Amino acid sequence: MYVLVNAAMSADGKLSSRRREQIAISGDADFARVDRCRAVADGILIGVGTVLADNPSLLRHDEQYGREQRGTNVSPPARIIADSNCRTPTDSDVLAGDAKTYILTTESASVARRSKLRDAGAELIVAGTDRVDLTEAFTKLGSAGIEQLFVEGGGELIFSLFEAELVDELTVYIGNVIFGGRDAPTLADGDGFVSGFPTLSLRSVEQLDTGVLLSWSVE
Amino acid sequence: MYVLVNAAMSADGKLSSRRREQIAISGDADFARVDRCRAVADGILIGVGTVLADNPSLLRHDEQYGREQRGTNVSPPARIIADSNCRTPTDSDVLAGDAKTYILTTESASVARRSKLRDAGAELIVAGTDRVDLTEAFTKLGSAGIEQLFVEGGGELIFSLFEAELVDELTVYIGNVIFGGRDAPTLADGDGFVSGFPTLSLRSVEQLDTGVLLSWSVE
Repeated sequence: MYVLVNAAMSADGKLSSRRREQIAISGDADFARVDRCRAVADGILIGVGTVLADNPSLLRHDEQYGREQRGTNVSPPARIIADSNCRTPTDSDVLAGDAKTYILTTESASVARRSKLRDAGAELIVAGTDRVDLTEAFTKLGSAGIEQLFVEGGGELIFSLFEAELVDELTVYIGNVIFGGRDAPTLADGDGFVSGFPTLSLRSVEQLDTGVLLSWSVE
Repeated sequence: MYVLVNAAMSADGKLSSRRREQIAISGDADFARVDRCRAVADGILIGVGTVLADNPSLLRHDEQYGREQRGTNVSPPARIIADSNCRTPTDSDVLAGDAKTYILTTESASVARRSKLRDAGAELIVAGTDRVDLTEAFTKLGSAGIEQLFVEGGGELIFSLFEAELVDELTVYIGNVIFGGRDAPTLADGDGFVSGFPTLSLRSVEQLDTGVLLSWSVE
């Protein structure tokens, strides 16, 4: 599986303010780019924190950039939620609409919550005891035909993906704003690395809207 | 006074790991650039947190880029510490050497600590009651001949400078590494903004070493 992580951050590395409100960082050119990335992916992955904070549908994409151009037959792209304890509300927008929704969860999620999410139309993938075992979950997603995964955050999930060495590529839009805040969410939260820091290789640099888009390969 | 804030951060916006250890983010080309910025500044400002974590001397600069080329007679550049409670240790490297050292502090700093720092050679500027009033302190520094200030962090000081609307320019080197960590220090920490976010205007983008140097003007 090829895993592309995408995020927009403030010039000081934050995904949003300390209030975790969604604030536009990029502009139309970057929104269109994200749409194209979504459209060519087999699956779009976010963490449950993002579901709870923003309630995205993950459906928005421009029809002119269809995945059928890659010859896949999985359409539209699946929505995938990393959600160790099945906290995704059953009335979330990510469960509405035609696209398939996978919930990656663990053995510690209650049977009742799992059942409610299945009733709401989600397909559950159980991997790990307390935290989602992303490596195992990705193997199962691969078996279900997910070959290209587009990850849209948040910072806890992105850190976990780097920790599990599952990231192939990282694109970061850096916006012309300062959010500040020692408690504001950043691109990669989690416990943080203290050694063996993942290193990147710069693929491209592009001025876009009022900011800069960096594309990195993970070494 | 013209205030240039400079920092090197990981690709995920951190100044160091959660252990606050100094980790090289940039390389020789960026070190040389920082040396040139130090050499042409009248003063170099850091927060006391950076003194305690890294014990920098702030003396390193390349003789070929002297401030005398600007026709100033203040040489070498002064070291300036924002230190509300006079926590700078008297044996800090920032108090050693020939350059002048100013400590920006407050009325709440103990008389004994102030006295010890004066004995160690520092010149104290008292501005504010509990936290350094940076606007007032900068006015006093201006009267002392500091016209160009180069700020080297950390994140608490940088946030305070943005909050006080004292920043003219921000240069950020973005390195090819992921640090992660919800508690790792970021470019702008503090309480964070929740509205009225400072906005920037992109001046230049340059690939340098294995990363990217962004230069922003504050709008």
